[in-house]
Amino acid sequence: MPISKSTIKYVKSLRLKKFRQKYNNFIVEGDKMGREALNYAPSLIEAVYALDSWLETHASTLANDKKHPVTEVELKKLSLLTTPNQVLIVMRHPNNDLSKNLLAGQMSIYLDGIQDPGNMGTILRIADWFGIQTVICSPNCVDTFHPKVIQATMGAFLRVKSPEANLETVLNLIPNIPVLGAAMDGINIFKMPNIPNQAILVIGNEGNGISKITQNLITQRIAIPAAVNSQAESLNAGVATGIICAVLKGGR
Amino acid sequence: MPISKSTIKYVKSLRLKKFRQKYNNFIVEGDKMGREALNYAPSLIEAVYALDSWLETHASTLANDKKHPVTEVELKKLSLLTTPNQVLIVMRHPNNDLSKNLLAGQMSIYLDGIQDPGNMGTILRIADWFGIQTVICSPNCVDTFHPKVIQATMGAFLRVKSPEANLETVLNLIPNIPVLGAAMDGINIFKMPNIPNQAILVIGNEGNGISKITQNLITQRIAIPAAVNSQAESLNAGVATGIICAVLKGGR
Repeated sequence: MPISKSTIKYVKSLRLKKFRQKYNNFIVEGDKMGREALNYAPSLIEAVYALDSWLETHASTLANDKKHPVTEVELKKLSLLTTPNQVLIVMRHPNNDLSKNLLAGQMSIYLDGIQDPGNMGTILRIADWFGIQTVICSPNCVDTFHPKVIQATMGAFLRVKSPEANLETVLNLIPNIPVLGAAMDGINIFKMPNIPNQAILVIGNEGNGISKITQNLITQRIAIPAAVNSQAESLNAGVATGIICAVLKGGR
Repeated sequence: MPISKSTIKYVKSLRLKKFRQKYNNFIVEGDKMGREALNYAPSLIEAVYALDSWLETHASTLANDKKHPVTEVELKKLSLLTTPNQVLIVMRHPNNDLSKNLLAGQMSIYLDGIQDPGNMGTILRIADWFGIQTVICSPNCVDTFHPKVIQATMGAFLRVKSPEANLETVLNLIPNIPVLGAAMDGINIFKMPNIPNQAILVIGNEGNGISKITQNLITQRIAIPAAVNSQAESLNAGVATGIICAVLKGGR
């Protein structure tokens, strides 16, 4: 059955946060991400638009009413990518509620106004690599279900939770957890005498760093050491997150 | 004097590698990068197109024939950015020749087919931070003077050299230098018994990893440890570079 104009309009509308929230849905595209979605979150899948060959190979266990075979031309009409890749899936938002249980005894990340979808996705991917289960997003972050975020996660959105909350709300849930934040005058991460087994690692906005209100809640300032004569002013937010997580989680 | 159509055409042509090579020029945009260009490489500056206020504040030492005051409207016509920011500079390519002297006694990076301009720029920025002076680019990398690379470096292109060469050529210059490459079965970077004081760190392509021909030249396989139960398959190329450089250069 050919894909209707209203389906195309609906799927395309999900590029916007307004419609993702209205319908409680978002889009996942491409062969690899499609396979991961079927593998890790089959219950969240609402509709799979894919080439016949892809459906046969990868979606044999999926209910028939969720399978929508499409031609290359139809996929191109649905897709947000310049080069669609075999499959587009409409998924329901996972449960992204914040709870004390998620944070207790864990290192979690708090993103303070991260705006770039690529950085957000890269950070979720880092969390996935280092076994960090929760990346809390301040309300002024880019939406974690933005199509470009989802693409950049390489599937990490299926395994890492990304609840939206203010840091104050987080600290009301779990009051005495250490809050680490990068600062020029922070302690060298390679020389921290004690790495707390539970902590919130704050990552600031790409241009403006950590906001004043969040700064005031930091309990431990940390720093990535630069070369002695370095003239560089900063590192990319994703790179800084990767280095800190590697040293605090991987280096022990 | 208003900006001529031929000037606009010429500046716009520099978005393409063909014309950057033909004219030996490239473009630097924005207030911060503009100030850094004047500070670190005044001799390479060919023409500065900027608002009057910017020229007065930041370009007082520059020869008059290189200053071209423009209106906001004119800057928008010249600029490759959606939101131009006060200044656009046309610069000559720096000397980017590779020599044994650049590599001896240093850790350098070799990029094996890095395609994404953002990743390339991010890696130059990482090198700048950790005091790595040379990032060698395989001939199939994105051009390091691509406008999006330049933007992502945040000025690092002014301080880090990025010669183009094959790894074989590098090893002909400096035959016995250790060549480190990331591999799943590599030695944990946090547990390397000896970190060589001179080395080439190979970073592979975003999708395909390190090419076969380069694989064969690696003398030490290294790995970034993931969490025990991690389902993530990989890290972003820029993030992986940052972590390895931090541990090998910053962590000692």
